Amino acid sequence: MNENYLISVEQFNRQSLEDLFNLAKDIKQNPSKYHDALSGKVIATLFYEPSTRTRLSFESAIARLGASNISTENAREFSSASKGETLEDTIRIIAGYSDAIVMRHYEDDSSEKAVKVSNVPIINAGAGKKEHPTQAILDVFTICEKFGTADNISILLGGDLKYGRTSHSLIKMLSLYKNVKLYGLSKPAFALPQEYIDFIHQNGMTYQAFTSFDEVPKDVNVIYHTRIQAERFEGDFGREEFIITQKVLDTFSKDTILLHPLPRCEEILPEVDNDPRAMYFVQAHNGIPTRMALLLKLLGE
Amino acid sequence: MNENYLISVEQFNRQSLEDLFNLAKDIKQNPSKYHDALSGKVIATLFYEPSTRTRLSFESAIARLGASNISTENAREFSSASKGETLEDTIRIIAGYSDAIVMRHYEDDSSEKAVKVSNVPIINAGAGKKEHPTQAILDVFTICEKFGTADNISILLGGDLKYGRTSHSLIKMLSLYKNVKLYGLSKPAFALPQEYIDFIHQNGMTYQAFTSFDEVPKDVNVIYHTRIQAERFEGDFGREEFIITQKVLDTFSKDTILLHPLPRCEEILPEVDNDPRAMYFVQAHNGIPTRMALLLKLLGE
Amino acid sequence: MNENYLISVEQFNRQSLEDLFNLAKDIKQNPSKYHDALSGKVIATLFYEPSTRTRLSFESAIARLGASNISTENAREFSSASKGETLEDTIRIIAGYSDAIVMRHYEDDSSEKAVKVSNVPIINAGAGKKEHPTQAILDVFTICEKFGTADNISILLGGDLKYGRTSHSLIKMLSLYKNVKLYGLSKPAFALPQEYIDFIHQNGMTYQAFTSFDEVPKDVNVIYHTRIQAERFEGDFGREEFIITQKVLDTFSKDTILLHPLPRCEEILPEVDNDPRAMYFVQAHNGIPTRMALLLKLLGE
Repeated sequence: MNENYLISVEQFNRQSLEDLFNLAKDIKQNPSKYHDALSGKVIATLFYEPSTRTRLSFESAIARLGASNISTENAREFSSASKGETLEDTIRIIAGYSDAIVMRHYEDDSSEKAVKVSNVPIINAGAGKKEHPTQAILDVFTICEKFGTADNISILLGGDLKYGRTSHSLIKMLSLYKNVKLYGLSKPAFALPQEYIDFIHQNGMTYQAFTSFDEVPKDVNVIYHTRIQAERFEGDFGREEFIITQKVLDTFSKDTILLHPLPRCEEILPEVDNDPRAMYFVQAHNGIPTRMALLLKLLGE
Repeated sequence: MNENYLISVEQFNRQSLEDLFNLAKDIKQNPSKYHDALSGKVIATLFYEPSTRTRLSFESAIARLGASNISTENAREFSSASKGETLEDTIRIIAGYSDAIVMRHYEDDSSEKAVKVSNVPIINAGAGKKEHPTQAILDVFTICEKFGTADNISILLGGDLKYGRTSHSLIKMLSLYKNVKLYGLSKPAFALPQEYIDFIHQNGMTYQAFTSFDEVPKDVNVIYHTRIQAERFEGDFGREEFIITQKVLDTFSKDTILLHPLPRCEEILPEVDNDPRAMYFVQAHNGIPTRMALLLKLLGE
Repeated sequence: MNENYLISVEQFNRQSLEDLFNLAKDIKQNPSKYHDALSGKVIATLFYEPSTRTRLSFESAIARLGASNISTENAREFSSASKGETLEDTIRIIAGYSDAIVMRHYEDDSSEKAVKVSNVPIINAGAGKKEHPTQAILDVFTICEKFGTADNISILLGGDLKYGRTSHSLIKMLSLYKNVKLYGLSKPAFALPQEYIDFIHQNGMTYQAFTSFDEVPKDVNVIYHTRIQAERFEGDFGREEFIITQKVLDTFSKDTILLHPLPRCEEILPEVDNDPRAMYFVQAHNGIPTRMALLLKLLGE
């Protein structure tokens, strides 16, 4: 990440990621040190589709750095049928109103388009079905916070491995670490696509697929469970087969942590929320220091 | 109100309410003293249904204390059919993004649910048809500001006494004062429910119901008029029978003040706006110092 | 503009406009000087119809002056059928929450109504089909920034001269300058209304109308092109006849600048964006210093 923007997890190497994590760690330990770090800056959050959780997380990060925020969830208005403005024009205009743009857009290549015309940093807060790099950052940060590193880590990816953007980004980011063992747990219809299996093998990681909790190794370091996005499919797709109950969780090691990008539905029952291994809320809250660190890196510490 | 949240008018005793009012009074007199009082804090306004007036009032209070705000009127997205997140999960996440949550929700017991899982203060900004405690606070504050106290006060409650949440909360809060005389003016279909009449008598207050302006005592200290929420009913419900015209107001004492939680429709004609007894805009503006005082109490002066 | 509000371009005389421009110029050159100029102030942006570009421009200006913002794009809720609040009541309430109100409303006379009842400055950010004075301010500021003054300027107004609010306001504001030559380029159906032609002549300016790029003088100082708002008309209205391609632009002088209030559709092709004469993005960005200057003038430097 030597560039002046963040649009893809692939921008990171091991060093730049660790630099970011070290800064995030310091922010978490000494928040008051950063209260005025970006004072006087104006950061735009430009959302073409609502994603209140992600937006509020960025806006809290902006506030905690002392910067100001201008915001819209209504950005589709720019390109509405009647007005017909291109994304490029909108970005050029908003770049003149702000010192950085955090952008969520429904098209896969929206961030690339924005970077081409912007003279202020662009941060991809989710682009179509493709990249959502700050989610991967907070996921890996949470793993490293718990285990000191993601080297030698074993992770069970559960739920939707086919369409789940977060699992795909996580795999890409974990390729920066050594000796990573990945396992998949899903129905065959939601299995990890071959291109990601190839990527895993080409990058020195291992992969094994399962279709039942009974088969998976119970000493994995991390279960990274995901929601099957019911709204995208018709018919019965068997989400309920991979529900993590307290009974299921208790078959795993005491040191296994349970992560989830949230929101969750029934795939993790609330009964496990108080189990110390259930770390999905800690993970969500790590969105603040990691996004603060990212904004600081891009806007000059 | 020894708790770290505000979800109900019933949390107050006479002392804690007067403490709050004294702080609000000082804020009103010395606003600049409080400009940085909550500097560095991030306060979330989480609205599951739009209520722009209430939201902007809180957001102004937040700004005038030097705190930052993250905000959504789109909070229903969290629990949309497709994503299906529980209120509890949303609160847990937002509590990690902010130092306090101001919440408006369509369910009566939403605040109680939120308090159970939040580790930051929750402020109820309207929960279903039940509680809207900060409205009662600003109502009673306005009365006390005018008369020095609400002891020995006489109040005519007009309009919708059956469904009107604000009148019910006002009655509850006035039970902290001595020798309060309450009168009701409504069509029989919108009369005060028996449970509130019982509450009035059990708490040392008196109550008398009327159905015409001609009958009511003209020396009441306060007329608290309310809107019949036409959108909730079908047919002709006779809203127009209790219109306060200049002629009607002139039948009352020169010391009677006229309050209304707003918005008003035709039940108070604009022709009385310039009468010094018409204090509903002063009352609305008292939402700022009282909400500032509340935020200060909850977030540590 | 001796008043405590801005609702019309007609409030300016030559002196007050130049004072505003001088302040805007200083802001542009020394932005850090103004970072705390309105610290402690709360400014409301009250939009009855979404106009994200204008809203974000004002909110950036507010932030860059160190003021706080309370904001809604949902202001129609106040006057929704069910609640039925008048604009006057809403303004009275919000005026008690804020130190100034920036307002966008769908009615032509909304600003006048607001000014009558507000005790804080009102800024018209677009009223119906009539006034949008801050657009004219940034347009003329951009011309003066380029040419030193708008005296002796020649301007080709293109596109929709009949309904285009921005061209009409520009004409009015240019009447403050000497020896202004105006040309019009449009289909007859979108020609400049007679009342504006009369205004031009009554105010010492000249006007000539054309219907083809071939006819217009190629040494004009400014081309002010506008979008025909397709959404307002049915059928084929021939927008495509006045497309500015690189080839068209190259028929004009090297010193001619090309302005547009944006958003643009096909009437200016992206191929001219990198031509130094294409100044519509500079123009849009001038919305920040000019609106900052205006806020400073109204809220006391």
